[in-house]
Amino acid sequence: MFMAEKGILDIALVTVDLNQGEHRGQPHLAKNPMGRVPVLELDDGRHLSESRAICHYLEGLYPTPNLMGLGFEEQAFIEMADRHIEWNLLLHFASAIRHTHPGLAVLEKPQFPDFGASQQAKAIAAAGIFDKLLQRQPFMAGQRFTIADITAFCCLDFARGLLKFVPAEHGLHALQDWRTRVAARASAASPRAPLLP
Amino acid sequence: MFMAEKGILDIALVTVDLNQGEHRGQPHLAKNPMGRVPVLELDDGRHLSESRAICHYLEGLYPTPNLMGLGFEEQAFIEMADRHIEWNLLLHFASAIRHTHPGLAVLEKPQFPDFGASQQAKAIAAAGIFDKLLQRQPFMAGQRFTIADITAFCCLDFARGLLKFVPAEHGLHALQDWRTRVAARASAASPRAPLLP
Repeated sequence: MFMAEKGILDIALVTVDLNQGEHRGQPHLAKNPMGRVPVLELDDGRHLSESRAICHYLEGLYPTPNLMGLGFEEQAFIEMADRHIEWNLLLHFASAIRHTHPGLAVLEKPQFPDFGASQQAKAIAAAGIFDKLLQRQPFMAGQRFTIADITAFCCLDFARGLLKFVPAEHGLHALQDWRTRVAARASAASPRAPLLP
Repeated sequence: MFMAEKGILDIALVTVDLNQGEHRGQPHLAKNPMGRVPVLELDDGRHLSESRAICHYLEGLYPTPNLMGLGFEEQAFIEMADRHIEWNLLLHFASAIRHTHPGLAVLEKPQFPDFGASQQAKAIAAAGIFDKLLQRQPFMAGQRFTIADITAFCCLDFARGLLKFVPAEHGLHALQDWRTRVAARASAASPRAPLLP
């Protein structure tokens, strides 16, 4: 979505099959010892992992439109907004999904369903905080669309698909309206760079 | 520790008493709706939360010594290293501590001790990955001391204090040697700015 916002079309995508454990195999671990996706392969052969670090690098190479802030002050406030989402909304929803969804049993061994349920409650409470924020400002980091909106949108789409979470059903109408606005962006239709054969 | 490395001495510290739930009270929530510490109060009255976002801001104001990278490429690789530590070492140790330590029962309700134990095993496995990394390079992000070393050092000190985790007892000698080197820095002695009355 970050790449689509910037119109980056010249980075080929290579699928790593998590269900087959490909991310924990030696070829992938040589690219990222943490065994996670995504990884960006640079022309000089180095590998950069962690979505936000990859976005930071792409923001440098493709500065327009700016999504992570101009100057250290705006960058810091956008990083704050992004991390609020990552550590409260995304972590809690991801923990809930990993520990309660049957489809994740192959990745998370063992699952702790009671813990997962408690994290879902925390995620919904966090969603309420972001709803209040969006009653005062149009986007997660303030007046304009940034990487924080991408993080939150992808997180909520994950929760929508796997936990059937719909903000309006919890009375979170500002969050639902924001979601509708972001979903209408061309980048949300997830255009993809061509897959490598 | 980040402030000490830069010699920043003119930011007064205000204690927020977590055990008394002060971070969940309205005065603190007005500064950070996520209810977490630390928060940096700016001269114009705005509040910046999230340790790494605060460091980003301070790096801009006090650029020397550089701790987060010069230029977007180095910044991205340091951010990668920092996030590897946050999401693998810090998150897992913090989850273990929050869900197993009696002293955290007041903050984490309810605790899930079996989940906590599983996260401690993941943290120790992650420590092994960083030990291998440090067999090849002197610091977490490569050849020089950066914010990633601060994140990892504070994480390991947390685990040392609350879980009695000592890398050498797990055969992680490169990690132990790195820890010894970082602990010898003046910043590790935790000089503090004066507390506000």
